[in-house]
Amino acid sequence: MSAPLHEAHPSSPGRGLPDTQQGMRRRNLSRVMHTLNTEGPLSRAAVASHIGLTRAAVSTLVDELIRSGLLEELGPERPGRVGRPGSALALSGRGPAGIGAEIGVDHLAVCAVDLRGEVRARAVRHGTNRGRSPEPVIHELTALVRRVVAEAEGEGLWPAGLAVAVPGLVASDARTVVRTPNLDWHDTDLGTLLPGDLPLTVDNEANFGGLAELWLGDGAPSDFLHVSAEIGIGGAVVVDGRLLRGTRGFAGELGHVPVRPEGPACACGGRGCLEQYAGEEAVFRAAGLEPGEDRVELLAERAAAGDKDVRRALRDAGTALGIALTGAVNLLDPETVVLGGALAGLAPWLLPSLERELARRTAGPACAVTVSRLGSEGPLLGAAHSVVRAVLDDPATVGIRP
Amino acid sequence: MSAPLHEAHPSSPGRGLPDTQQGMRRRNLSRVMHTLNTEGPLSRAAVASHIGLTRAAVSTLVDELIRSGLLEELGPERPGRVGRPGSALALSGRGPAGIGAEIGVDHLAVCAVDLRGEVRARAVRHGTNRGRSPEPVIHELTALVRRVVAEAEGEGLWPAGLAVAVPGLVASDARTVVRTPNLDWHDTDLGTLLPGDLPLTVDNEANFGGLAELWLGDGAPSDFLHVSAEIGIGGAVVVDGRLLRGTRGFAGELGHVPVRPEGPACACGGRGCLEQYAGEEAVFRAAGLEPGEDRVELLAERAAAGDKDVRRALRDAGTALGIALTGAVNLLDPETVVLGGALAGLAPWLLPSLERELARRTAGPACAVTVSRLGSEGPLLGAAHSVVRAVLDDPATVGIRP
Repeated sequence: MSAPLHEAHPSSPGRGLPDTQQGMRRRNLSRVMHTLNTEGPLSRAAVASHIGLTRAAVSTLVDELIRSGLLEELGPERPGRVGRPGSALALSGRGPAGIGAEIGVDHLAVCAVDLRGEVRARAVRHGTNRGRSPEPVIHELTALVRRVVAEAEGEGLWPAGLAVAVPGLVASDARTVVRTPNLDWHDTDLGTLLPGDLPLTVDNEANFGGLAELWLGDGAPSDFLHVSAEIGIGGAVVVDGRLLRGTRGFAGELGHVPVRPEGPACACGGRGCLEQYAGEEAVFRAAGLEPGEDRVELLAERAAAGDKDVRRALRDAGTALGIALTGAVNLLDPETVVLGGALAGLAPWLLPSLERELARRTAGPACAVTVSRLGSEGPLLGAAHSVVRAVLDDPATVGIRP
Repeated sequence: MSAPLHEAHPSSPGRGLPDTQQGMRRRNLSRVMHTLNTEGPLSRAAVASHIGLTRAAVSTLVDELIRSGLLEELGPERPGRVGRPGSALALSGRGPAGIGAEIGVDHLAVCAVDLRGEVRARAVRHGTNRGRSPEPVIHELTALVRRVVAEAEGEGLWPAGLAVAVPGLVASDARTVVRTPNLDWHDTDLGTLLPGDLPLTVDNEANFGGLAELWLGDGAPSDFLHVSAEIGIGGAVVVDGRLLRGTRGFAGELGHVPVRPEGPACACGGRGCLEQYAGEEAVFRAAGLEPGEDRVELLAERAAAGDKDVRRALRDAGTALGIALTGAVNLLDPETVVLGGALAGLAPWLLPSLERELARRTAGPACAVTVSRLGSEGPLLGAAHSVVRAVLDDPATVGIRP
């Protein structure tokens, strides 16, 4: 389960597979899976017409996918969208499952998603992870993973892999947490701490949030800048349906774009970074509040109740977001900017000033700003779906029950 | 000659061609061309071993490419790098040529580049184009194009296409200049003004400068941010060997990244944009100089002579570049930042302050800054090479003599 497979776009299934007969077979298996993922249940003939292969060629591919447990035939009692009952194929609801996990600053969460994209099991543990070393946190996370896997197995699923979202920079080995400003973990190889029986991918929470938006968002475009916040501010750049990772995997660090170069010092070593104006601590400080649990809910409640200090703090945060996003939009020319994570819940009070800055400063035509409906669920769902996507992208190898 | 073909990376020749037998043949023709482009003259057997096909399959491909005039066999008097004289193949020096053109604010230039990457003809006209309408400028450019084409034809080449670099935003049709701040052209379709007998591509000069760096730079990485200046400041983002164009083709507008959000008003509608601190006019103003012709040379001469005002102006421009680039590096995590165009000649006085800002502000590890050896030749060479690349990427169709 290598990282690039996670990012293939439905429009080019199996991208990256070798250009041989064997590679072509694997790409065609992937095309069948992606067609059923996009279109829902279809007959063999409809699949063949969708992907431009003969009915006979598709039948061979489908038989292989049924044998592997990745597809199932719907019985006559579920005719789906085709005329002849019994002939419809669907992605299996009892096949591989993607296990997603999230290490938040204030919570742990795990879920299992089947090939159809349905969440089939989940577990959450609230409570801060600040100041804790990695071992006990990962120990707790492992217990949650085991519970979710057992529940999924009880429904006939089997785990195809584990993807973990973390609030920090991850090395290109997709295992090692290089730095988590709010947990104070450094160069921690989660591969040695997590159960070794599942293929593992670790990634930044903002990356998984951006991927979730790409895969699950309402009419999400394939070129967008996803801005999210939990405690810090993260960004994910999606270009042509692919996440832009950067040379060292550190792309998307929107929180440290300079907004006012002579502004307050930031933990990153810079001055006047976006996080100093729109990060959670900065907003609480500007509003004269003490941070507690359920921080975002508190801000949203106060703002909705008309609290002038909170509204002013959010308006100023929106202005800072607008300034930083102007630079990003001028550089990247995305189709939209998507506010996700905790920012989605605060959008009504951030958006007016954010959009005003963006409109008056952008060199090209103004860029639309939308609000994610996934909100703070994005990173966890993105993690689980990344495993499911890896199966869709290369069912011949990634989707095989171990 | 569609835009994406220009950007294919040697590591994935023919990317984007359909996944059919015919598409596979076209990809393999492209592999042969790219192998000879990268490796220089090779025997058929060496080509076969490079691309992993049988000698017989390669011979069929090579025969087709020789018939089309894209390859030639080197005679026994030029044994090249292989043992048996007469068996070495090379890209043709009498085949298709890429015609590149540049519309600068203060000059026009045209050149012809053969498949081997050699400039075989060129023509330049100095003199400002400010305040001139498109028609007379394009009329002059057309005369230069005709002169260069005639010269190339005299050497046995034939023009495969014309690519034009312009100092402004270009629409996704790759023909229409949307806006050129320093020429004051708006929504100008160059396709109706330029000779219709050559396939035409129009692109932003910064994009062609970035592509030239990718294709011709000294050990250029495949992930970098190219920063250039003629009169304005332009950027080109290259990710994984491909130019990032943005949704509307407007990506790379580094000159309008906010540096100090309450700074001086900019023509783009924003305030405190990078161009207000590091653009040519800003630097001249800061140094107390009147802009004339040969602006960069003047600044470089004065700085080299120890002029304190010029040195301070360039130092401040470097600081502003460093602040804007910090945001870009945090977002994109490129392998390097490359200073090109006019900035290359001023690098000794820009770099110290630029690198200092970048090092102290970047969230991840500091990003290396290099200086392009192409300098202000980049956009013109990038334009001509984009036509040559299109032939290498799809020789079966793009490389056919009309």
